[in-house]
Amino acid sequence: MSSFVVVGGDAAGMSAASKAKRDDPQLDVVVFEKGEWVSYGACGLPYYVKGEIQTLDDLVSVTPEEFREERDIDLRTGHEVVSIDPDDRTVTAVADGGEVVQPYDHLLIATGAAAVVPSIDGTQLEGVYTLGSMTDGRELREFVARSRESSPSEQPDRGPACQFLENCTGPVSIVGGGYIGVEMAEALAANDFEVHLFQRGDRVLKGFSEATSEAVADHLREQDVVLYLDSEVEAFEGSGRIEVIRTADRTVEVEMALLGTGVRPRTELAVEAGVEIGETGAIATDEYRRTNLPDVYAAGDCAEAEHVVTGDPVHVPLALTANRHGRAIGQTVAGEPSVGGGVAGTAAVKAFEIEAARTGIVDHDEAEAAGFDPVSRTIDARSRAGYYPEGGTVTVTLTADRETGRVLGASLVSEYGEGAVHRSHAIVAAVTEGTTVGELANYDLAYAPPFNTTWDPVLTAAKVLEGEL
Amino acid sequence: MSSFVVVGGDAAGMSAASKAKRDDPQLDVVVFEKGEWVSYGACGLPYYVKGEIQTLDDLVSVTPEEFREERDIDLRTGHEVVSIDPDDRTVTAVADGGEVVQPYDHLLIATGAAAVVPSIDGTQLEGVYTLGSMTDGRELREFVARSRESSPSEQPDRGPACQFLENCTGPVSIVGGGYIGVEMAEALAANDFEVHLFQRGDRVLKGFSEATSEAVADHLREQDVVLYLDSEVEAFEGSGRIEVIRTADRTVEVEMALLGTGVRPRTELAVEAGVEIGETGAIATDEYRRTNLPDVYAAGDCAEAEHVVTGDPVHVPLALTANRHGRAIGQTVAGEPSVGGGVAGTAAVKAFEIEAARTGIVDHDEAEAAGFDPVSRTIDARSRAGYYPEGGTVTVTLTADRETGRVLGASLVSEYGEGAVHRSHAIVAAVTEGTTVGELANYDLAYAPPFNTTWDPVLTAAKVLEGEL
Repeated sequence: MSSFVVVGGDAAGMSAASKAKRDDPQLDVVVFEKGEWVSYGACGLPYYVKGEIQTLDDLVSVTPEEFREERDIDLRTGHEVVSIDPDDRTVTAVADGGEVVQPYDHLLIATGAAAVVPSIDGTQLEGVYTLGSMTDGRELREFVARSRESSPSEQPDRGPACQFLENCTGPVSIVGGGYIGVEMAEALAANDFEVHLFQRGDRVLKGFSEATSEAVADHLREQDVVLYLDSEVEAFEGSGRIEVIRTADRTVEVEMALLGTGVRPRTELAVEAGVEIGETGAIATDEYRRTNLPDVYAAGDCAEAEHVVTGDPVHVPLALTANRHGRAIGQTVAGEPSVGGGVAGTAAVKAFEIEAARTGIVDHDEAEAAGFDPVSRTIDARSRAGYYPEGGTVTVTLTADRETGRVLGASLVSEYGEGAVHRSHAIVAAVTEGTTVGELANYDLAYAPPFNTTWDPVLTAAKVLEGEL
Repeated sequence: MSSFVVVGGDAAGMSAASKAKRDDPQLDVVVFEKGEWVSYGACGLPYYVKGEIQTLDDLVSVTPEEFREERDIDLRTGHEVVSIDPDDRTVTAVADGGEVVQPYDHLLIATGAAAVVPSIDGTQLEGVYTLGSMTDGRELREFVARSRESSPSEQPDRGPACQFLENCTGPVSIVGGGYIGVEMAEALAANDFEVHLFQRGDRVLKGFSEATSEAVADHLREQDVVLYLDSEVEAFEGSGRIEVIRTADRTVEVEMALLGTGVRPRTELAVEAGVEIGETGAIATDEYRRTNLPDVYAAGDCAEAEHVVTGDPVHVPLALTANRHGRAIGQTVAGEPSVGGGVAGTAAVKAFEIEAARTGIVDHDEAEAAGFDPVSRTIDARSRAGYYPEGGTVTVTLTADRETGRVLGASLVSEYGEGAVHRSHAIVAAVTEGTTVGELANYDLAYAPPFNTTWDPVLTAAKVLEGEL
């Protein structure tokens, strides 16, 4: 009986294990997961901290028991793989019960990514959090609960006073204005915290267009988030517990700091085994997610994937790619070689009452580095027919190559519910298919007054950009 | 100075006129419109009748004065073109002031479509309406207003009693379960009418998948619409005013009947001038929307267009195509030959608190006639992450060709706001690009918990269908 061993039990690992076992029930599928949680929706953690999701278990799509009993997968939680021997084709895992040496015919490294902790003073202080794991989520929720119990309305002389909000629960800080930063701003503000968001660069959501970043920043401010742009945090200070966050310009008294400063691929295990790392710092793979070692695959947040526009390897650690590539590997291991497709760098985010999405290449420097001559236009358009009683504005930034007219990427933002995110789907397709803006403008998209204008904002953006080529 | 003459001042005509004049300000652009309204959103009429839009003027995107003064278009409303002479290159129009003979260098026939009135007894009775024009919309709204003023709660002994609803305004009927039928069911029910909807075939929205039709039918019934399937209306009866609607099975007392029984292209003028008509009954054109007559174009609801999947000419009279093809003709006439793209037969509709969209080829007979071996699968999926506090179900029917895997079409339905319509955009792209289901399943679509599951329902449908090929 052939065996498929998986290191890491989240999206990529469990997708691969499930698909392989389903397609080839004879396969012996073993998954090592160092923690207790598998197949969990880390993307839901901000909503758990916010209080909209009641238990961490709600984030789990399939439980360990279900994997074991219903899917017949030999899932070993609490097992940390400490080495891979590609010559012997074994992995060694340690657990409470001692050491296990497991042979493999096929191996998947799906070790994920870890939250980056910046090299500044004070990150070890109590009250400084990251949000990379279920445990992180639990700790943050406990912080929220404790703070609310001792809120200033009940204990008026407690801690530093809020500067901007009446009856706030306490000033807290977020470092980093990426997805986690803006989602957690919503989660904390919803719990009546005064939120101070520090962004090193000159705009939030830097992978999006400037128009999107501005719309989101304006909205954060409307929601009473105190936003500091061009503000690199230099230290957290306090005795035991964080009391102050400090940049070159200012100090702000806070009771908590959340680090939303990105993730780095967990590659130590792979590197020690001789797996090749790409220029991005993540594990290099081919389109089948094969590493340089025979029968060793890598997928998910620890691995690179090829960009659908440039064909170049990129590291975009997001959930769908992990699922998709895991599934493709499972299919391959079960005997039907499958590519999982490239990545377009597509992402979506909700921040309070606004939604945004981006896909492909929006940044001109990045486009030029890939050999394109980028042109972008940003349009504001009605989300529904002008006469329809509901509706708002969708702002679309569309980027194309001047010479070929090829759609390279887009960034969209709208009020929540007005469709920026689902509208991005058409552009993901265009980016993937190598469509020109003229062809995109001619897509026969669905129209009815409750959903869009006759020319959907995406089509309008394409028309306008086509006029510039 | 070259001249461009347009017959018909709605979507196709005014788009062409505007684009031509904008791209070539030297062009003499003359538009003849027999009515008083131009460039109006007929798609908004149900919402005007419903009462969500206050005046017919709100449906007008650009007024006649704006076309004349700001866009410098010689727009002649109240002018009916009665003949075209392709040898002399003139059109003859009649107006109150007499007859005008207008020479043309380029001519666009954009005469639109007319509501079909079935050949049954009683269609001439007072209280039998169609909804094809602004005038129709006004008359229907007046009917609604009159009925509400004399509602049964105030005049309990008036007319036939409502059979199902308490305090209803009066029983009314709709003939036809297409877009107009279901939109008007919403509009009339919102005004407290008891609505009886008669559909000749065995399901509503017959261009959609059976799953979509069933979901919409169930929802109409939930909303207290009395739905009669397989019920062909044989006559309207009454003395002067409609009192009864009759099918083979039953008679129902009603105070009004709305005919939502489709449209037919208005081609009389074209036929008399020697313009070739296609098999669909609409004007035949090439991809530039040129007819068989030199320099004579046709676009919008009176004309055919090629289907993006089959390449065959089809007649799909919808607003976006009219706009897109009108614009392309304007560009061509101004000196830059442009194709407006084919049609995918995409359509969207809202019915009460449900939304649906369809695109491409869903019907298996139609697919087989085009030489495909169709396979379809229908899936139900969560519209947002399972743990997210909001969300509902999206039902996706996806159809592909068994041999090539090519995506042929789709039909989607969800609660209103849960994204069936905007999600169809990705499938429109796939259908247009000749994408396979495997490629569609690998699209890197945007994901975040407030918007979808990690695999968007569209991707899940593609995965499931791929498994069947």
